[in-house]
Amino acid sequence: MQRIPGGTGAYSESKGALVCREAVARFIARRDGVPCDVEDLFLTDGASPGVHYIMKALLRDKRDCVLTPIPQYPLYSATITLYGGTLLPYYLDEASGWGLDCEALRCCVEDARARGQRVRALCVINPGNPTGQCLSQGNQEEVVRLCAREGIVLLADEVYQDNVYAEGKRFTSFKSVASELGLLDQVPLVSFNSISKGAVGECGRRGGYFEMTGVDAAVKDQILKLASINLCPNVSGQICTALVCDPPQEGSPSHARYSAERKEILASLKRRAATITKALNALEGVSCNAAEGAMYVFPQLTLPPAAVAAATQIGKPADFFYCWRLLEATGITVVPGSGFGQRDGTWHFRTTFLPPESEMESVCQLITDFHARFMDEFR
Amino acid sequence: MQRIPGGTGAYSESKGALVCREAVARFIARRDGVPCDVEDLFLTDGASPGVHYIMKALLRDKRDCVLTPIPQYPLYSATITLYGGTLLPYYLDEASGWGLDCEALRCCVEDARARGQRVRALCVINPGNPTGQCLSQGNQEEVVRLCAREGIVLLADEVYQDNVYAEGKRFTSFKSVASELGLLDQVPLVSFNSISKGAVGECGRRGGYFEMTGVDAAVKDQILKLASINLCPNVSGQICTALVCDPPQEGSPSHARYSAERKEILASLKRRAATITKALNALEGVSCNAAEGAMYVFPQLTLPPAAVAAATQIGKPADFFYCWRLLEATGITVVPGSGFGQRDGTWHFRTTFLPPESEMESVCQLITDFHARFMDEFR
Repeated sequence: MQRIPGGTGAYSESKGALVCREAVARFIARRDGVPCDVEDLFLTDGASPGVHYIMKALLRDKRDCVLTPIPQYPLYSATITLYGGTLLPYYLDEASGWGLDCEALRCCVEDARARGQRVRALCVINPGNPTGQCLSQGNQEEVVRLCAREGIVLLADEVYQDNVYAEGKRFTSFKSVASELGLLDQVPLVSFNSISKGAVGECGRRGGYFEMTGVDAAVKDQILKLASINLCPNVSGQICTALVCDPPQEGSPSHARYSAERKEILASLKRRAATITKALNALEGVSCNAAEGAMYVFPQLTLPPAAVAAATQIGKPADFFYCWRLLEATGITVVPGSGFGQRDGTWHFRTTFLPPESEMESVCQLITDFHARFMDEFR
Repeated sequence: MQRIPGGTGAYSESKGALVCREAVARFIARRDGVPCDVEDLFLTDGASPGVHYIMKALLRDKRDCVLTPIPQYPLYSATITLYGGTLLPYYLDEASGWGLDCEALRCCVEDARARGQRVRALCVINPGNPTGQCLSQGNQEEVVRLCAREGIVLLADEVYQDNVYAEGKRFTSFKSVASELGLLDQVPLVSFNSISKGAVGECGRRGGYFEMTGVDAAVKDQILKLASINLCPNVSGQICTALVCDPPQEGSPSHARYSAERKEILASLKRRAATITKALNALEGVSCNAAEGAMYVFPQLTLPPAAVAAATQIGKPADFFYCWRLLEATGITVVPGSGFGQRDGTWHFRTTFLPPESEMESVCQLITDFHARFMDEFR
């Protein structure tokens, strides 16, 4: 039995305790069928600190750009701003279930370069946050080829890898795609993962990691230097990350129970996603793509002009106004689409499907009743 | 009994769970006899993330300077570099037990301004790291007056506040000094603390906090925005911070045992500090100030020219060379003074006095024997 030197009360290595990184490496190797080097792994307090390190390493000035999906989880816009770079938006296509258009991506890169900008990285969130889509393998291959050809660092936010609900879809890591294409050494790839998602959702423990492949050793040394400033990630979170990555395997006494619990949690999330999507699509002026994965749906709102005017009057975007009224009327918190970015002139909100399943119908009913009243008021 | 909403598995407020901040606020109020507002407190994963937030908020470009003690714990040099500011050194006076010369500080500020630099903050580490000194109350008053008069943010690294060993000395917080001077609202003060030190030394749990007083509400809002990017500090670390700050009080069943254990740990550290200081001062060419506090001594080495030449030959500072040879010969790790900064032409190393007390004599003997051989080799 391996130990963490010093236990949970002492600093670990800045990358995380070796025994924990070994558990993560076994998980990745099992998942992808591709070896994982423990030295490519950095354990972190949740996924966010890793994004900080990488952005800090990538961004030198305003000319350095990161291609970022819109809508996006605002960790990316925040850290790009924080480290002085430029967010280069690429729009996910709502009409095709928030699909990624690689041709449009290529154009983005060319246009940016023509403007004198340097495209340093491409961020892909798969499954999507706030949009819930799962990329097709073809899409992923195009992304990997683009990054390899153009020398762009691929930032793969894969924190929802365990949350895939769509029939016939399964999570495929960018690492395994790169490996199958024979491009593992040609694509600078950083894959982020977290214990805040999946079937466990242990957000408060702040556990996560990132893996760097196709990245120069000297760059990895600099990232280690950055990580070392804060000594180490919290050791309990590291242990929890190791446990989440290395659950009871077939043949172990607790495997059956673990599998059953995990399966039921994910099945329940899938049912809840279907419930909320159906309810939202039944509302006047609301259209909502199915959640293929992650923990969110991101419905589009077509709001009456009077509602938009009322929002303008208080100096707020219309979707903020809608969400605020929903909160006031029902106590339900959803996040305005303007917090994630959206095509101009469209309004959305993000809702999780995390309320207990027993409450899901009543939550949907509250939203339905509110929506009808809201539309009556402003129609 | 108050609870943390969501327990340890859910995100807390980005500043930390209210119930934990309340425990910290009680501790500070008890320590200083000055009220503490929970809204001025940010719990963090150890003290370091707080230093990041503050440096990020303070530093806009190279002209923004932070007065930093030399020698200093390199968190400060690292974060000043990271966020693009300039470290303005002020030298602690080894001859007076690593004292702080406020007249010299004033000159530093004037000279910097004359050069067109903006002195944004003054960092004081008290008790000192790596130098172990405890500032006199008079010194602290001068520092507070200087910061109030000149509009300089006082960054008070007070993580060793529980580690004071010198007879007749006790820890006095900069907050209480500012309060006694009636300057609490005039001095922008950020005080850092951590559970990695004191009698508990729970480094791996990553718990800590900072308190901001005399700081504009709009600035605190921006700091909260920065803290929010990473969601929240780890909740177990928050709980541990609350427990360390709010130990069994007089009258509670475990108070006697808690007090006895704490007292013995600190007394043992004091004895160990005396042992290592005495042993170091007995060495040829070594002089070592007593450790008034913290966990370190920082002896000066007068090395033979041949040793300096041998170091130069391998492209390393002479103190690095000495420490490396010590490590190779004995397995004992100490840190070269060049890692902390020191007056040109002087050489030091930092050692903790954390080995178990039962091993302290043998550790000292190993250093003594190594040192004699080293000096014989290069004398």
